[in-house]
Amino acid sequence: MILVLRPDASEAQIEHVIARITELGFTPHVSRGQHRTIVGAIGDETKPHAEAFAAFAGVEAVHPIMKPFKLASRELQKNDTIVMVGKIPIGGGSLAMIAGPCAVESFEGLDRIAQLVKDAGANILRGGAFKPRTSPYSFQGMGESGLKILKEVGQKHHMPVVTEVMDPRQVALVAEYADMFQIGARNMQNFDLLKEVGSTKLPVLLKRGMAATVKDLLMSAEYILAAGNPNVVLCERGVRSFEDSTRNMLDMSAVPNVKGQSHLPIIVDPSHACGRPDLIPAMARAAVAADADGVHIEVHDCPEKAFSDGPQALIPPKYTSLMVQLRKLAEVMGKTIPV
Amino acid sequence: MILVLRPDASEAQIEHVIARITELGFTPHVSRGQHRTIVGAIGDETKPHAEAFAAFAGVEAVHPIMKPFKLASRELQKNDTIVMVGKIPIGGGSLAMIAGPCAVESFEGLDRIAQLVKDAGANILRGGAFKPRTSPYSFQGMGESGLKILKEVGQKHHMPVVTEVMDPRQVALVAEYADMFQIGARNMQNFDLLKEVGSTKLPVLLKRGMAATVKDLLMSAEYILAAGNPNVVLCERGVRSFEDSTRNMLDMSAVPNVKGQSHLPIIVDPSHACGRPDLIPAMARAAVAADADGVHIEVHDCPEKAFSDGPQALIPPKYTSLMVQLRKLAEVMGKTIPV
Amino acid sequence: MILVLRPDASEAQIEHVIARITELGFTPHVSRGQHRTIVGAIGDETKPHAEAFAAFAGVEAVHPIMKPFKLASRELQKNDTIVMVGKIPIGGGSLAMIAGPCAVESFEGLDRIAQLVKDAGANILRGGAFKPRTSPYSFQGMGESGLKILKEVGQKHHMPVVTEVMDPRQVALVAEYADMFQIGARNMQNFDLLKEVGSTKLPVLLKRGMAATVKDLLMSAEYILAAGNPNVVLCERGVRSFEDSTRNMLDMSAVPNVKGQSHLPIIVDPSHACGRPDLIPAMARAAVAADADGVHIEVHDCPEKAFSDGPQALIPPKYTSLMVQLRKLAEVMGKTIPV
Amino acid sequence: MILVLRPDASEAQIEHVIARITELGFTPHVSRGQHRTIVGAIGDETKPHAEAFAAFAGVEAVHPIMKPFKLASRELQKNDTIVMVGKIPIGGGSLAMIAGPCAVESFEGLDRIAQLVKDAGANILRGGAFKPRTSPYSFQGMGESGLKILKEVGQKHHMPVVTEVMDPRQVALVAEYADMFQIGARNMQNFDLLKEVGSTKLPVLLKRGMAATVKDLLMSAEYILAAGNPNVVLCERGVRSFEDSTRNMLDMSAVPNVKGQSHLPIIVDPSHACGRPDLIPAMARAAVAADADGVHIEVHDCPEKAFSDGPQALIPPKYTSLMVQLRKLAEVMGKTIPV
Repeated sequence: MILVLRPDASEAQIEHVIARITELGFTPHVSRGQHRTIVGAIGDETKPHAEAFAAFAGVEAVHPIMKPFKLASRELQKNDTIVMVGKIPIGGGSLAMIAGPCAVESFEGLDRIAQLVKDAGANILRGGAFKPRTSPYSFQGMGESGLKILKEVGQKHHMPVVTEVMDPRQVALVAEYADMFQIGARNMQNFDLLKEVGSTKLPVLLKRGMAATVKDLLMSAEYILAAGNPNVVLCERGVRSFEDSTRNMLDMSAVPNVKGQSHLPIIVDPSHACGRPDLIPAMARAAVAADADGVHIEVHDCPEKAFSDGPQALIPPKYTSLMVQLRKLAEVMGKTIPV
Repeated sequence: MILVLRPDASEAQIEHVIARITELGFTPHVSRGQHRTIVGAIGDETKPHAEAFAAFAGVEAVHPIMKPFKLASRELQKNDTIVMVGKIPIGGGSLAMIAGPCAVESFEGLDRIAQLVKDAGANILRGGAFKPRTSPYSFQGMGESGLKILKEVGQKHHMPVVTEVMDPRQVALVAEYADMFQIGARNMQNFDLLKEVGSTKLPVLLKRGMAATVKDLLMSAEYILAAGNPNVVLCERGVRSFEDSTRNMLDMSAVPNVKGQSHLPIIVDPSHACGRPDLIPAMARAAVAADADGVHIEVHDCPEKAFSDGPQALIPPKYTSLMVQLRKLAEVMGKTIPV
Repeated sequence: MILVLRPDASEAQIEHVIARITELGFTPHVSRGQHRTIVGAIGDETKPHAEAFAAFAGVEAVHPIMKPFKLASRELQKNDTIVMVGKIPIGGGSLAMIAGPCAVESFEGLDRIAQLVKDAGANILRGGAFKPRTSPYSFQGMGESGLKILKEVGQKHHMPVVTEVMDPRQVALVAEYADMFQIGARNMQNFDLLKEVGSTKLPVLLKRGMAATVKDLLMSAEYILAAGNPNVVLCERGVRSFEDSTRNMLDMSAVPNVKGQSHLPIIVDPSHACGRPDLIPAMARAAVAADADGVHIEVHDCPEKAFSDGPQALIPPKYTSLMVQLRKLAEVMGKTIPV
Repeated sequence: MILVLRPDASEAQIEHVIARITELGFTPHVSRGQHRTIVGAIGDETKPHAEAFAAFAGVEAVHPIMKPFKLASRELQKNDTIVMVGKIPIGGGSLAMIAGPCAVESFEGLDRIAQLVKDAGANILRGGAFKPRTSPYSFQGMGESGLKILKEVGQKHHMPVVTEVMDPRQVALVAEYADMFQIGARNMQNFDLLKEVGSTKLPVLLKRGMAATVKDLLMSAEYILAAGNPNVVLCERGVRSFEDSTRNMLDMSAVPNVKGQSHLPIIVDPSHACGRPDLIPAMARAAVAADADGVHIEVHDCPEKAFSDGPQALIPPKYTSLMVQLRKLAEVMGKTIPV
């Protein structure tokens, strides 16, 4: 860490800083400039107490120099991680095409949509059984019966399935039915839930929180990795902003930003990012061109009867024509869409 | 709800919209304008399916006209709710002065700080035993032994205590030791946790999420109220913004904004909002002048040795002189600080 | 406009609202619901006074139903506008590849960079002579001598040139040398400047402000169009956000968002959006795949000696290999890059 | 500046960095750590080229250590600046109470409002003659005839007047009529305009831009100071955020944040920040308690007939009762409201 001292820091303060740095097991390097003294503290920045440096009298600013994540870092692992979801690889040139309705509503409904998206080229089926809703009066999902339907429909169409888990107490139950956990944006920093899915080996689709930086996202992935589960796929799904014509603001640059720092795969969810079906095709194409490892799209064959998020769902014919475009772009990018 | 149709909406689309509105149990009111047709859908907007209106062909925009929260609304209850935390009332002219260290670190440390803040005029003691940390490698709190210390110190100094609960599985344990739950910003939309604390009668300090609107905050309160617990105190603690010289941006206008819409008390936490002790006194004074029902301040007698968030803690002498100012402002506002 | 009245609006208030609506030349449509009365005001929403509706006693919310822009709207003009910059068309399937250094620094420097980007496939040359800098002590641009250099270098390499104009008093001068004005993000709502460039016929590259919504951007374009200049090209260049690892947040969804509402071309500037050369190639590819009408990239052959914004410039070999990828993507999108 | 090198920076890169630092007139201080090398560059950080350090091969991050503003800095001037607007001092314990309508609409209207706010205790009259409007079709202000009215009404009621200037070409004209320029939020980084008002000695009310950090605001003040005009008063008026129930988000912490770094006075404008009259009184009180040097409030005696921004105006009786509260708070804060 680098400690920049105030211009008026006294000699006693400087000595106290040096003494404390040494006491905490760091090696101090002192540079006395014309206006300010700067002290480097060489050592393990993840130690407890290291953050307290900023509270020392006379210290104006503290700049960390090490990345705060380790297991997620590309410095640790140079090659891209490939996460297997059922038989579908994600990462390393292989694209996840995750599609399905927001919520599981019935066997027939999900079966019909699964057939349509499978035919179009989707390789993983999604559907929520536990739904995080802003209002306690909104539809909260079918629960375990929804999980059963999801599993059956996935098996019928030979598609692995992903579904959200919201509560550490549900992790074992969801693991019985799903091929991949989804951690939603609202739970990205639900650390007990991260530790719980980290205690399994099932792949985790970790969505970026609405106010999370790219670093925060990687730190949340680090929780899962540190708990012992290496199968993490990140998902950019938009963040809150002042723009009021879209539900969130899709931060497309998060894709190369993550890939530069981490070996983990990252996919893009334009459905939740934009909240508008008219913007989804362009954003899905952009994601593939930006080197994302897949896209996650909500598809419903009758949005006006959907139990939740109907207005943002893409209808199957539009999904089918989008997949035609995505295959061409995947080819230009040297990627494949496994089936 | 008001459905604004596209200028090019066909007659068939208009009729379909009217038919669906009727089918869903709403009464349609149609106004045909020069450029557009507008359809009012009169009925219960919280019904499932109501949100699907925006997915109808020909519909350009949907404007809800009812507030989405009920139990939290001032339309339901005109008078201010007063929440009792131990013997301390919050709301209705009575100010909560919550103070203490970020984390419980030891009996001696907490005892010393409790004495200092009690002497200065604080009426509720805070201290974390379960800590939500961005990094899995940071200090995660003392757990149950921290809860025990917190309870003992609170009793010794005759102060009720508040502490964070992060996991639905901890709720019963925390309830044994605490007089008030704290739901942290990262868990404001951890709906299973909200339901769990809602199933008790212990007061809940609900902090605003970093990307939550005022409406989102009130909807999360609604989860707790709807689960049966009326004792909710809201807390403004800053939201994420582009300003990089403070940890978060304190949205002071949330105080009158909430109080206009809801009967629930709301307090302000300038410590987490600003992350800088030099800004805390001015923001605490502003909160009282803005009609907040209290302030929540982190105090540590040796910030540079704090286990977490040391750099944002106020030292006891500054807390004491701040309390002198806050008492004067409370008087101008016609409020009291109970002891 | 739709006026939603408060649940407790009195009969007198309702009548006053109706009377005022009529007085202002609008036709009122009244719907009395169970909880609230809603009044439609049919007429020209751009009239002065129309915004005052929200100030009427008893009115809770006002929802406009007309788009506030007209000349920029696709409702007015269905076909894409094609803007000619010198001999280069932008829009309608033709991609602008704008490249060059942040600032004009010398004839030799610009000449060298122009040759490199021209060889790579760029079709418009950029370079600033008047520089908007956060600090009064930073390099402010070469002024008119920079404009001369820009024009000469452009002519030598047969490339039209674009350069920023910051002050209404500079418009005539800049028009002597440039083929296209650039209005920078900081001046997007400098309305006198917009009117001034609107009084010419020279094409205008209008950059989105750092806190501007898509609607704000289109309203600023409307200023130029309303002043008589139809040659406007919009530019998404990122907005301010809490993400601190990039200079701004590139809102890629603005591309399809604008194209759905407006006939004007829109290009993307990943250099200013990201402020990091490592992210530029992915974002430029994403822009083309998202249907943008071009990309704007800062290129410098010695970023460490650049007078401004060196750290975000792409070096020529990387620009060249990016252009190879962009040509392939343009082909998939059915677009051409004119020379 | 502190240059943090990449862990894999080569010896040649390190030497190149040191050579360039020396070449640019800085003194290098090298610290070789276990993982990284850190190089301090001691010298004048405002030099051209200094920003290019981040473009050096092998450099991962650059941390400036000097404040980028000088004349605005409290390091230069310890005591609060007091700006005289007519006979009204702003700063140093003296509060500006600026009030008036959004726009000058007529002599009679302004005269009536001026009388009311003067009686309530306002000491500076505001009113716009040149209005920056999002739409080219909205009322753009009365221009010079509005300036004349403003001056006459101000003289009649013995109140100095402040009004917005938007265009460098209007500066001389506005100076004939006004006692203080206002630079609006949209023009905070209109650098030519800043230089132009900086070339006069008339006080300037500089409003914070909607996406400007506190540092950006101080840098814009620095432009005016560097041009020779020391009479700058800053104004916090809210920034853009995701919160959609207020027009902007008032960053109250900007008040102590600015006062800690700068000797310039800062006032608060809750009218534009919130855009809702119901929130203005609480935010005005909070501003005074936060140590602001005044408040700026839009007052209109018939908001529903206002030409612009009617819905956010406070009506005179509410302004009068607010002023009663503000006087009490000023007393607690040890401040005076000059008349």
